[in-house]
Amino acid sequence: MMTALIALLASGSSSAADAKAAQDKARTLCAGCHGPAGISTNPLWPNLAGQKDQYLEKTLLEYKSGQRADPNMAALAQTLSDEEIANLAAYYAALPAGG
Amino acid sequence: MMTALIALLASGSSSAADAKAAQDKARTLCAGCHGPAGISTNPLWPNLAGQKDQYLEKTLLEYKSGQRADPNMAALAQTLSDEEIANLAAYYAALPAGG
Repeated sequence: MMTALIALLASGSSSAADAKAAQDKARTLCAGCHGPAGISTNPLWPNLAGQKDQYLEKTLLEYKSGQRADPNMAALAQTLSDEEIANLAAYYAALPAGG
Repeated sequence: MMTALIALLASGSSSAADAKAAQDKARTLCAGCHGPAGISTNPLWPNLAGQKDQYLEKTLLEYKSGQRADPNMAALAQTLSDEEIANLAAYYAALPAGG
């Protein structure tokens, strides 16, 4: 609680999530399909750049729990902690929409 | 088939979907939650502007069939023909990402 509050104050953001901490995960887990700038390489996969932070977090948590079904995304999301998911959501939300 | 081919050639687009035909549906069915410019009014709902055409179409078809579960989206998607879904996907894909 206190840690989260300090992180929130330090970042000046409305979210305690740490987008910077997500960079490595984004590069290794997400960029292959969703592009290095969050613009997907396949028209069937969504762009993530500039998407709503809370929507991205909710979606990854739904893939992790199985509430939203997709074999690839489920396998990836299950390797992530809830904190890593929040950080990844913040990371992609902060990228410029449209690449 | 011939009609689709003519529409495709006339639009100069890689998709035969008619984004213009979707404007009324977008205004009446989608804009309340996803915003008049495809930028959502609630951080839990995704922005649609500039999203991949095929991803949007696939997602609406999944809501319509029940493959992707969401009570609000299912109810709305079930009112749409597959052609209207393709047109709406083209409409939102063509809006500028980021609003």
